[in-house]
Amino acid sequence: MKNVLVLGAGLVSRPLVHYLLQKEYHVKVASRTVSKAEALIKGFKNGVAEALNVNDEARLETLVKECDLAISLLPYTHHVQVANLCIQYRKHLITTSYVSKAMQELHQPAKAAGILILNEIGLDPGIDHMSAMKIIHEVEKKGGKVVSFRSYCGGLPALQSNTNPFGYKFSWSPRGVVMAGRNNGQFLQGGEVIFIPGRDLFKNYELLTIEGAGTFEGYTNRDALPYKALYGLKDAHTIFRGTLRNIGWCYTMKKAQELGLFDDSPREDLKGLTYLDLMHKLIGAEDSYDIQEETALFLGLEKHSTVIKKFQWLGLFDAELLPNENNVMDMFAALLLKKLSMDKDDLDLIVLHHEFIARYGKKEERITSTLVDTGIPKGDSAMSRTVSLPAAIAANLILRGKIRMAGVHIPVQPEIYEPVLKELESMGVKFVERTYPVK
Amino acid sequence: MKNVLVLGAGLVSRPLVHYLLQKEYHVKVASRTVSKAEALIKGFKNGVAEALNVNDEARLETLVKECDLAISLLPYTHHVQVANLCIQYRKHLITTSYVSKAMQELHQPAKAAGILILNEIGLDPGIDHMSAMKIIHEVEKKGGKVVSFRSYCGGLPALQSNTNPFGYKFSWSPRGVVMAGRNNGQFLQGGEVIFIPGRDLFKNYELLTIEGAGTFEGYTNRDALPYKALYGLKDAHTIFRGTLRNIGWCYTMKKAQELGLFDDSPREDLKGLTYLDLMHKLIGAEDSYDIQEETALFLGLEKHSTVIKKFQWLGLFDAELLPNENNVMDMFAALLLKKLSMDKDDLDLIVLHHEFIARYGKKEERITSTLVDTGIPKGDSAMSRTVSLPAAIAANLILRGKIRMAGVHIPVQPEIYEPVLKELESMGVKFVERTYPVK
Repeated sequence: MKNVLVLGAGLVSRPLVHYLLQKEYHVKVASRTVSKAEALIKGFKNGVAEALNVNDEARLETLVKECDLAISLLPYTHHVQVANLCIQYRKHLITTSYVSKAMQELHQPAKAAGILILNEIGLDPGIDHMSAMKIIHEVEKKGGKVVSFRSYCGGLPALQSNTNPFGYKFSWSPRGVVMAGRNNGQFLQGGEVIFIPGRDLFKNYELLTIEGAGTFEGYTNRDALPYKALYGLKDAHTIFRGTLRNIGWCYTMKKAQELGLFDDSPREDLKGLTYLDLMHKLIGAEDSYDIQEETALFLGLEKHSTVIKKFQWLGLFDAELLPNENNVMDMFAALLLKKLSMDKDDLDLIVLHHEFIARYGKKEERITSTLVDTGIPKGDSAMSRTVSLPAAIAANLILRGKIRMAGVHIPVQPEIYEPVLKELESMGVKFVERTYPVK
Repeated sequence: MKNVLVLGAGLVSRPLVHYLLQKEYHVKVASRTVSKAEALIKGFKNGVAEALNVNDEARLETLVKECDLAISLLPYTHHVQVANLCIQYRKHLITTSYVSKAMQELHQPAKAAGILILNEIGLDPGIDHMSAMKIIHEVEKKGGKVVSFRSYCGGLPALQSNTNPFGYKFSWSPRGVVMAGRNNGQFLQGGEVIFIPGRDLFKNYELLTIEGAGTFEGYTNRDALPYKALYGLKDAHTIFRGTLRNIGWCYTMKKAQELGLFDDSPREDLKGLTYLDLMHKLIGAEDSYDIQEETALFLGLEKHSTVIKKFQWLGLFDAELLPNENNVMDMFAALLLKKLSMDKDDLDLIVLHHEFIARYGKKEERITSTLVDTGIPKGDSAMSRTVSLPAAIAANLILRGKIRMAGVHIPVQPEIYEPVLKELESMGVKFVERTYPVK
């Protein structure tokens, strides 16, 4: 049986490692913390765990040399190093990360070596590409054109775990979520490029009802313009990508940003202070008889508004010592982590939703494609399954010669997405497609 | 077998009628619309349906005369009429409604007739009384005193049916809910009487995390002061009763009220107009380039606030014709009914939660008692079960001689609440009690 090298044993690795072990591949999991790798292969004879410092180039080289296919679940900064070794030893490589410029430049060398470097085969990016391309190609086959494409994705707490006033829970550090809240966004709407500066990100959102899932807020997710070329959407006047959150999230985050809670500049003046002191500093009030009233005033809100109640619930007005961080963003993130964390019994929920307008001559049709996936009680989270199973399935297809491509790719070809989506569906990760006439 | 007369075949009657039919009583269901009564007894040989106009005093008299026990699920205005007939013919009577002054005055006559008129044996009032009294009596038995009592109840959409941005769904006319939003409230806090005028009802709310249920908003539910005497809470410095709603409800309703959407005074000037026209009138803008912006300004909000997004979603800014109503409140209620209705596959959720502080000498203890009940898929709603099963169980207990009282009562005695709570628990309507030390 062939050998698969899995680099990284983080939160999403388990479903991938188990899938490959069950297919009876020899799977070597190499991770900085070997105990995490050991936990993943436990109970399987065909698994091996190994401690690896990725800066140990010689060991990494040996590992790549010994495998038939490598899967890197390391942070994306390590992918190019691994890719170069894969080209040198003619081994296929899979990652779930976005293709960086440096990765893209390896296209010709990978092609010359006859190996496939398949990236962006996770959830978002990954399942989003595949499910979108399936519909785009179907419309084209029927002689139609996609004139509008809107795509939304959100990782949320499952309904029964949605037990706090923010409607959100973190499964790891909230820093990334707060950081993402400062990103600029860009999209195409009715032929016009709309740019959303980071400070206005949470001002520009819509309420969106997704059949079978509920009503959410959707706000701009980075730059949607490259998708015109990536998906071949030459006739589209609208191309939008959005993030989904529960109702109330955007306005609350907007006000958090206005308070200065997204500011990561180093501060020396907060040592030994409390969150209550911090709030006084942020709103520029030396002292106050009613901090909630004054914070509301500062934000143009009322004390009895939902946002102030949420801030109070979070503990922003409490006389609790600030954590040992050197900036306000990390102090805010610490509070979010404390009050909005996934507990071990909590389940997560993935919602991925595409909306297309397809034109056939003079007739238009609205097509939606929706994935709603909930974590498995006492089992894998929806996030870990949807991120890592596509990569696992692709690895199996490549090793069995069902996918035969070379170079740096993302999963936009039928050769990849058809079998991967089909197998995901058999595992319960399933899109529901609906078609509506456009009035 | 004995004869039970059930007056009314409304939304909550079914679990009660079926319970009694399964106990093999002869059950006669009399309802204005006979088809509703027929639907309830369908499939049972021991059930009879009859059309009844409650103003037909002679027929009502005959029905009461022929039964052993009557249950009135009619609107509360009819209860005293039925009670007088029950006294005349010495038949027991059960209702799930509050005891009116006129009903209270029948205590001595009922006692003299040797019959029990048991009221407030539904959910709220009903299960709330019984579950509270159980704990109060337990504390007293252990030599303690209840020094604080806070009680909350809410009828909400179940998690999987909570699919709109308001977090609420109506199973009948929203008029009652909007009307209740104008009630004054009153409670005791730390020995002080706090009065909340109706216009401030939705300003005075708290976020409340209920273990096993989630985080909710709780706002004042009418007058809690009578509960001092009703529950014998002579040592309590705090007595509060609240209504539960999902996060964001209170502030949204506060702004709806500020807009004038709770106003039921007759209007002649709105004929042929649209909701958009109505909004112009309400904010006093002849014409506007951006109605959402101007409405936000009028309410002291921002256009991108959650509240304005919800109003937009509801259709308040749409150029849709107003319904044929003569006041703004009913026009608002019509929109709520259209956009926030329970669909036939939707499930509901009942949350009833008590919080006590009990004092034993110098030691204090916090006790909570929580009921979380979800509607049965393709079966009875949680609301109908929790409102009508207590009355059904009590009827059975009275007819079997297990409850032997006379006069006008509510279920605050162990003789009633112990067997009723026990049987409810066997049917899945179950309180979870928790005790916490007070720091």
